[in-house]
Amino acid sequence: MEQNKKKKCTVRFEPSGLKIEVPVGTVLLEAAHKAGIYLSSICGGDGYCGKCKVIINEGQFKSKPTTLLTPDETQENVVLACQTRVFSDMSITVPKYHALETSQILMDTDARRFSELAGEVRAGIFKFDPLVQKIFVEMSPPTVHDHTADHERLYLAIRQQIDAPIMQTGFRILQKLSRLLQSCGYKATVTIGRRGQTTEVIEVDEGNHCKKNFAVAVDLGTTTVVAHLIDLTKAATVDTEATYNSQINFGEDYIRRIIYAEENDAFDQMQNRIVNDVNNLIVTLASRQRIDLQEITTVICAGNTAMVHFLLNLDPTRIRREPYIASAGFVPPIRAAEAGIQINKRGLLYCLPSVAAYVGSDIVAGVLTTRIYTKKGIYLFADIGTNGEVVLGNRDWLVCASSSAGPAFEGSGVKHGMRAGAGAIEKLTILDNGSIEFKTIGNTPPVGICGSGLLDTLAELFINGIIDRTGRFKANGQPGLTEGDEGRQFQIASAGDGHHEIVITQADIDNLVRSKAGVFAAIRVLMESTQTKPENLDAVYLAGGFGNFLNVRQAVTIGMLPDVPLEKIQFVGNTSIAGAKTVLLSRKALKAAEKIAESMTYFDLMSHPRYMDEFTRAKFLPHTDLSLFPSILKKEKNNT
Amino acid sequence: MEQNKKKKCTVRFEPSGLKIEVPVGTVLLEAAHKAGIYLSSICGGDGYCGKCKVIINEGQFKSKPTTLLTPDETQENVVLACQTRVFSDMSITVPKYHALETSQILMDTDARRFSELAGEVRAGIFKFDPLVQKIFVEMSPPTVHDHTADHERLYLAIRQQIDAPIMQTGFRILQKLSRLLQSCGYKATVTIGRRGQTTEVIEVDEGNHCKKNFAVAVDLGTTTVVAHLIDLTKAATVDTEATYNSQINFGEDYIRRIIYAEENDAFDQMQNRIVNDVNNLIVTLASRQRIDLQEITTVICAGNTAMVHFLLNLDPTRIRREPYIASAGFVPPIRAAEAGIQINKRGLLYCLPSVAAYVGSDIVAGVLTTRIYTKKGIYLFADIGTNGEVVLGNRDWLVCASSSAGPAFEGSGVKHGMRAGAGAIEKLTILDNGSIEFKTIGNTPPVGICGSGLLDTLAELFINGIIDRTGRFKANGQPGLTEGDEGRQFQIASAGDGHHEIVITQADIDNLVRSKAGVFAAIRVLMESTQTKPENLDAVYLAGGFGNFLNVRQAVTIGMLPDVPLEKIQFVGNTSIAGAKTVLLSRKALKAAEKIAESMTYFDLMSHPRYMDEFTRAKFLPHTDLSLFPSILKKEKNNT
Repeated sequence: MEQNKKKKCTVRFEPSGLKIEVPVGTVLLEAAHKAGIYLSSICGGDGYCGKCKVIINEGQFKSKPTTLLTPDETQENVVLACQTRVFSDMSITVPKYHALETSQILMDTDARRFSELAGEVRAGIFKFDPLVQKIFVEMSPPTVHDHTADHERLYLAIRQQIDAPIMQTGFRILQKLSRLLQSCGYKATVTIGRRGQTTEVIEVDEGNHCKKNFAVAVDLGTTTVVAHLIDLTKAATVDTEATYNSQINFGEDYIRRIIYAEENDAFDQMQNRIVNDVNNLIVTLASRQRIDLQEITTVICAGNTAMVHFLLNLDPTRIRREPYIASAGFVPPIRAAEAGIQINKRGLLYCLPSVAAYVGSDIVAGVLTTRIYTKKGIYLFADIGTNGEVVLGNRDWLVCASSSAGPAFEGSGVKHGMRAGAGAIEKLTILDNGSIEFKTIGNTPPVGICGSGLLDTLAELFINGIIDRTGRFKANGQPGLTEGDEGRQFQIASAGDGHHEIVITQADIDNLVRSKAGVFAAIRVLMESTQTKPENLDAVYLAGGFGNFLNVRQAVTIGMLPDVPLEKIQFVGNTSIAGAKTVLLSRKALKAAEKIAESMTYFDLMSHPRYMDEFTRAKFLPHTDLSLFPSILKKEKNNT
Repeated sequence: MEQNKKKKCTVRFEPSGLKIEVPVGTVLLEAAHKAGIYLSSICGGDGYCGKCKVIINEGQFKSKPTTLLTPDETQENVVLACQTRVFSDMSITVPKYHALETSQILMDTDARRFSELAGEVRAGIFKFDPLVQKIFVEMSPPTVHDHTADHERLYLAIRQQIDAPIMQTGFRILQKLSRLLQSCGYKATVTIGRRGQTTEVIEVDEGNHCKKNFAVAVDLGTTTVVAHLIDLTKAATVDTEATYNSQINFGEDYIRRIIYAEENDAFDQMQNRIVNDVNNLIVTLASRQRIDLQEITTVICAGNTAMVHFLLNLDPTRIRREPYIASAGFVPPIRAAEAGIQINKRGLLYCLPSVAAYVGSDIVAGVLTTRIYTKKGIYLFADIGTNGEVVLGNRDWLVCASSSAGPAFEGSGVKHGMRAGAGAIEKLTILDNGSIEFKTIGNTPPVGICGSGLLDTLAELFINGIIDRTGRFKANGQPGLTEGDEGRQFQIASAGDGHHEIVITQADIDNLVRSKAGVFAAIRVLMESTQTKPENLDAVYLAGGFGNFLNVRQAVTIGMLPDVPLEKIQFVGNTSIAGAKTVLLSRKALKAAEKIAESMTYFDLMSHPRYMDEFTRAKFLPHTDLSLFPSILKKEKNNT
């Protein structure tokens, strides 16, 4: 018997009322995780992001000292959950801005529209030839004059319908094959999966069930996981669903999560989180559409390299550390069950190939979807997520790079930033009279600001001369400028309006500028290296989870994208899932994706001599070199 | 609680002293099985072969009436174990002729010599390129300037050494790969297996262990299972071992075993038996040679179609029943562990391909070993086991057939027949004075007669006029002829000589004649169908487990083989294991075996219009048509 067996305390979280029993001394953030409560946390519990604020209503606790709380907050028993330990039964209130539950996620309808389109267009461009298909085979039963064995008889029947020079059959299928064929009179549905050049007999069932073959395409985002349910017989998207990546409690970017996993030997836990997220999405889609999980034969994933490593529990540690490599860029198809994904127990899990540690299969999917790799001319593709990945090229060459300038445009690292969910300000204009017009998702009172709103805010602050070209607030006395706990700030919605108070701080602006500077510097390095001038660009594709109504003009205004005619810039939504769906539906598309991944040249910006210089220059609005942004020069009202 | 819970009884078997506790009413044969006692049984416990005789020393039992015991036997408490139920604690004596334990099996030295030879010769004929190999790869570790992922880095390194256009890696290997490569400084031993056109990374280990790579080749005989331990780095046979097939308690031929398994739903049990036999052989070989089981990466099997089905638990039921087909003729390589075979947990199990339900991979191995399929001219191959399979052909065509005339030449279905073990009469001559000279294996007192001895006995009885051309004993008064319980019989060793009494009965002779007639009829059908005359035959290869010193002349004398010059007949021993070893050592040999299996034309004798006629004619000694046996005509002493 253990002598000093720890006492247990019950922690109750309001307003949800969820309770959890934990040992004395447990960190409050961990208790919240265990209770299934979502708390924002960028730093992964290291105590420096100040995001995981909660209010203690009752109970004994010990908190480490921090500079991230104002005296007022301390007065009101606000603590950082990651710096606070439980020492008795407690009651905790979780502030509303944490409470972004799955049910509140709004599907990004633009992204949805684009991905739908892509899936269908591609199904036309590429031959419809899904990675997993069901075929109905009718064989003449063996006789004494036709004594071909059942296994070989099945192969002959399959080959009458599809091209399958190299075939294999799992042992368990082989063991049941003869009895099954006899019992169904040699009329069977064969589920066929493609693994490289090999065609695998995944399953054999009695009778004809060819019309029941479904797949789930997944975009493994660092922040949001999106899943589309596909009817493989019709190449149609049946339903879509999204959830927050529940790894988020371990850090808002994947580098923090890798560090957390290393320090806490939490790789299994990290895998469990993302696998559970994917399983929950699958179950939600299947039950809503009344589809048996056994009828889902395929899962296909695209995502950044780290997320794919977490999903499969491959070692991700050197993604964050020299020499910055992946364990595997090309992951062979595996049985989904091997990774814990609950579909047909013999169903397959495909992951699109990635290019490098920081250019994942989501970017390959983007190139596939935008079809840059088939085009003449020169095209730019930028995917703004937690990192900003950039691709430049055409059918002859492709270069790519990743800027790790932070997830500000995903709403992280910004005081009132949030993802594109209900109550997020997605559109914002500062009128000539200094008053502010905004629109929220769902037209509810504002809770925070999502990507497109932050883009608008930064551009409007700049255009209206409230910040200067370095991103500094110019002076007091400007309408909306106040002095907050963290210094000067711009008031978007004041608590006095009956709204939740929403401000943009100097730190927020710095983060946003850093993000856009990172992206633009990456673009510049690729363009300079390939001697591409803005006027050479035939199109610029912007992908990412900004929200529904992205004002692409603002992306030029702040100097995130090169100053090309606006009609050349296209917001393409979630190209990661669109590409995954295309591959799912056509083996030729998978081959194309593999060729893209192999042929893209990766520029490591950290070791690139020009990058820091370009980054520093891009930290101005729109840039130190104004000649790069002639259209902004004209519009700018308040520059001297 | 069960009311009439059965009482238990202890059954003790002498002379081994083994004891087993069984419920009241248990059949004695079953009790013996459970105790691990070998009892002969041809009929699988149906009570009509009369083989499973035991003596009851003590205890209560109930036996069904039978005509298979003499009054003397009944007097002496001899019973059929399969017809007797236990009703109290009992003591049983198992007669010596049952007691053929593993340790008593004599390796067939001729077969061993042939198989050694074959393995080595073939390794020269075919390029040495084993199905599973270990290679040592040294990679330059990744750097920021060489950021190829570990998985792709490994593939590049492998492809520098071997030809592997299509590769795959198991998920478990992928998961551990990065940590392993880092810990060993990118110097690793890769175990590579070939599965069709695909090259699989079976295992990756730190450092260089290339020199430790072993395989076991197995001949899955209905009666005997033979295993050879092979050093894959040297293409050398390290050790050999054999055991009785412990399925034998369920019937001495595989048809009986299939029936038993169907009637008792004992397919799993049947698999367990043969898998245990193979595992025991592997453990024996490995421990004797001080080899870690993990260093055994491959098992390769050849055997009749039914045995391969039992091993893998594939449905064998239609092998014995219309339309007489296999579940699978071509079995893909599987992980040995999937079938329960205990070698390296990721090691592979290969089965050679078979032709038809009654022409198994052992025959394909025989054709491969004798190289008929590469030769000009015409060649005959006959493998005499429980069935007699026959192949005729050359490099342009191959025809084959199987006669199910019974296992008499394996010593089954013959009163004092036995396998080639210690005490078996393997050579026999009837001298002019009527006295008998014989030689036993191990030069011990005779226990029974093995295949070569039975061949000699039948031929000598015929040549010396003791039996006529129909196989009937001619008349009383001939030396050695006595009247036994089962009618007229020929005394080989009388109990009065201080020997165990050994006789040949009329029934024995009938069984032997039926066996040889089946083989010869099969040969005739193939020869007639291809218009092959005896003088067209360039060689006749005789394979099987007859014993060490087969007198091939006697096989012609009795009319089992066509009357060709004796120098054209060659006893080739166990070609099943020789072929398996050849395939193990060369991918090209596997391809050749596949081509042989595909290209051989199978003649179903049961539905062949000529077979019964040929069989009837061949039931004479040597044949009804003496012109087919000119050499016998000359020698025959006693024919009118």
